Amino acid sequence: MEEKMKELSEKIIRLLEEKKIQELKEIIDGLYPTEFAGLTDYLPLEQIIEIFKLLKDDEKIAELLSELSSELQANIMDALGKEKASDILEEMDTDEAADFLGEITPQESRELLDLMPKEEAEEIEELLKYEENTAGSIMNNEFVALPEDLTAEEAINKIRELSPEAETIYYVYIVDKRERLIGVISLRDLIMANPKAKISEFMEEDVVSVLDTEDQETAARIIADYDFLAIPVIDRKGTLLGIITVDDIIDVLQEEVTEDIHKMVGSSEVYEDKLIKASPLTRAKARLPWLFVCMAGGILSGSVIKLHSDTLQTVMAMAFFIPIIMAMGGNVGAQSSTIAVRGLATGQLRIDELWYNIWTETKVGSLIGIIVGIIISLVALIWQDNYVLGLVIGLSLCLTIITAATIGTLLPLIFTKIKIDPAIAAGPFITTIVDVGSLLIYFSLGTFLFKWFSG
Amino acid sequence: MEEKMKELSEKIIRLLEEKKIQELKEIIDGLYPTEFAGLTDYLPLEQIIEIFKLLKDDEKIAELLSELSSELQANIMDALGKEKASDILEEMDTDEAADFLGEITPQESRELLDLMPKEEAEEIEELLKYEENTAGSIMNNEFVALPEDLTAEEAINKIRELSPEAETIYYVYIVDKRERLIGVISLRDLIMANPKAKISEFMEEDVVSVLDTEDQETAARIIADYDFLAIPVIDRKGTLLGIITVDDIIDVLQEEVTEDIHKMVGSSEVYEDKLIKASPLTRAKARLPWLFVCMAGGILSGSVIKLHSDTLQTVMAMAFFIPIIMAMGGNVGAQSSTIAVRGLATGQLRIDELWYNIWTETKVGSLIGIIVGIIISLVALIWQDNYVLGLVIGLSLCLTIITAATIGTLLPLIFTKIKIDPAIAAGPFITTIVDVGSLLIYFSLGTFLFKWFSG
Repeated sequence: MEEKMKELSEKIIRLLEEKKIQELKEIIDGLYPTEFAGLTDYLPLEQIIEIFKLLKDDEKIAELLSELSSELQANIMDALGKEKASDILEEMDTDEAADFLGEITPQESRELLDLMPKEEAEEIEELLKYEENTAGSIMNNEFVALPEDLTAEEAINKIRELSPEAETIYYVYIVDKRERLIGVISLRDLIMANPKAKISEFMEEDVVSVLDTEDQETAARIIADYDFLAIPVIDRKGTLLGIITVDDIIDVLQEEVTEDIHKMVGSSEVYEDKLIKASPLTRAKARLPWLFVCMAGGILSGSVIKLHSDTLQTVMAMAFFIPIIMAMGGNVGAQSSTIAVRGLATGQLRIDELWYNIWTETKVGSLIGIIVGIIISLVALIWQDNYVLGLVIGLSLCLTIITAATIGTLLPLIFTKIKIDPAIAAGPFITTIVDVGSLLIYFSLGTFLFKWFSG
Repeated sequence: MEEKMKELSEKIIRLLEEKKIQELKEIIDGLYPTEFAGLTDYLPLEQIIEIFKLLKDDEKIAELLSELSSELQANIMDALGKEKASDILEEMDTDEAADFLGEITPQESRELLDLMPKEEAEEIEELLKYEENTAGSIMNNEFVALPEDLTAEEAINKIRELSPEAETIYYVYIVDKRERLIGVISLRDLIMANPKAKISEFMEEDVVSVLDTEDQETAARIIADYDFLAIPVIDRKGTLLGIITVDDIIDVLQEEVTEDIHKMVGSSEVYEDKLIKASPLTRAKARLPWLFVCMAGGILSGSVIKLHSDTLQTVMAMAFFIPIIMAMGGNVGAQSSTIAVRGLATGQLRIDELWYNIWTETKVGSLIGIIVGIIISLVALIWQDNYVLGLVIGLSLCLTIITAATIGTLLPLIFTKIKIDPAIAAGPFITTIVDVGSLLIYFSLGTFLFKWFSG
């Protein structure tokens, strides 16, 4: 795929140079928008703009643009001029248009909206009002809504008429005179129905919908669980405002996962899509907060060692095993918390099975702890020829792992229970707690056992 | 939602006890399959089986069953008896039926297939042949395929006829006499077309499809990128074998992410959906391999410290800072590698920008390293009143962070380049390398600087 795109980009640059416009247009016409987007990765900005200037069809331009990054969109729109840009915006899906306008300055956005027909500008402005991550912010208002007194045949004719403006016609929504959502019919059911039957007779009245102010993740979950192709968005009065389609939901699900994964390593919620290309300073800032937590934990861990410096002075070899205790504790903690966080996200782990989940994870931790503990005892014994040290290392590694596994499962579950995102609990937070805890176990046990055996 | 399901489950148990069958059936009829599945979490197995025995409609049973876990499916089918089970299988989507048969013993599966009509049994057997995670293994063969010489009107009539057996009718596939895929039309285009127009005139001939033996992730990527509702699956000769629909793809995408996340913490590929409920021993085994790698790394780290025990003997305070060096290095490494792995998975990071990506991440690391290095120098100076120690800590923490950020980005990119899953590189692997590296930096620098300043 990448190889193919690279070759094609070279061909396009050549065609541009040789002014073989017709051939070039045919190639672009044959590409799906996502393929064209892949191609732009290999084309210099100038050439991309040149291509857009050659394309005359606003609808085609709108289609290609919607798959590009917002930065590239802004550059292209800028080069095409305000008049053309507003024509293109008109052809874009309202949700895509709103996305684009949300990324440029409010003044530029205002100018473009003023150039558009009033009705369409208002539709887009409706969407711009919504806060990020709400269902309203990702819906589009190009749906098919019909009154309930039509017959199946009349409905299909009406759909034919409305289709050019609609994002999907596979679900048709039925509204009352006040635009309130009262039913839904799939195009499939319409086609299968008796043409003379009233749609009110066979529409599904129990419509699953989301509120415009709800989290977009709720809409995504519903579509994923119910296997819907779209979900209607309503306000508190039940008025149908828009729809969210399954393709937008796939993007939401992917974004949410990226966010979760980044939270897990504490690269902060801010470290999302756009930040991966941001300046080093912005990126460093996004990552520092958790590193300070980690630093504080490190100082605390250091104090634990300092507290036991007498033991360390007598048995210098205790220091050699600090890394293994920390690394194993951290790893098991990360494993357990990741399993818990992901289990909660996918619904595999249920919060009302809190104690059962913790108990089984403690059992897993104990098994791992015992196996690993015995091995490291032997290593310590052979390496340092000190059987008390072997005992100290083995026992404390075992206890550390059990603690790490238990805390690693406990924290995400408790965070969920008190309504904090469990992903935050994973990673740095747990590692820090486990670090301090494991060194406490190791050095307390060391001090105690060496005293015991020597005295 | 959970609260509602709990209440409903209590009501259902009551209705079962009071033998109010009609009321019970009405409740079940009003539920979507996914809602029913949520409900079964709160019902004892006996009651679930009782409900299924009350439902007479095989199609309804098939629909409800397909959302349940394979364990629960097996229990219910078992209780219903072989005859009934094979009737239900007939009503299930072929991909769901194949999934179910793949989970029970080959002998049981054979018995059920033998009880089914031959044609339908063969269709399912076709699917059972495919290896897990291939496109063929998740496709279903209930699609609408038409010859190219029909008119739009004839095609719609044909769709009406075939609809009851089809998983989706929104995409209609056009095949030649040898069943080879030669075109696709959306139901939307069919409805919009002139009823007398031949479908061969307006079908899309440039069909995007996947091979049956390709990875299911390829199919998922295409549907996600192209915003399709389904993708056709063909064999090497171009014969249309089945389709994969967008709802199945959402599941695949989620599974792949879970797999990636688990690989990142080294809880191993095996630690997937089913294992979360497996026995502690199985689960411990799945997690041990990486822990052994980590243990080996720990011993290596310990040897680094042992090598410098003279320095440690003179400046015992060096030991107090081992945790902070390790924790910070590990954290930054985990952040960088996670950002790289996720960036690669979402296409935000491009492998052909290898050196650019590493260079920017090194800059981010340097910034973080300098900030954090200065702070920890001051902490060390104030805490231990030793300016050489302050210098050693600050410098080595700064170098450790730069190294961790660079390696954290480099490894996933290199792994991708040599076609190894980059998720494996993240987590334990990088943490282990960074642990050893950071202690090498810290103690070498310490030994060198303390000698320099004292001599």
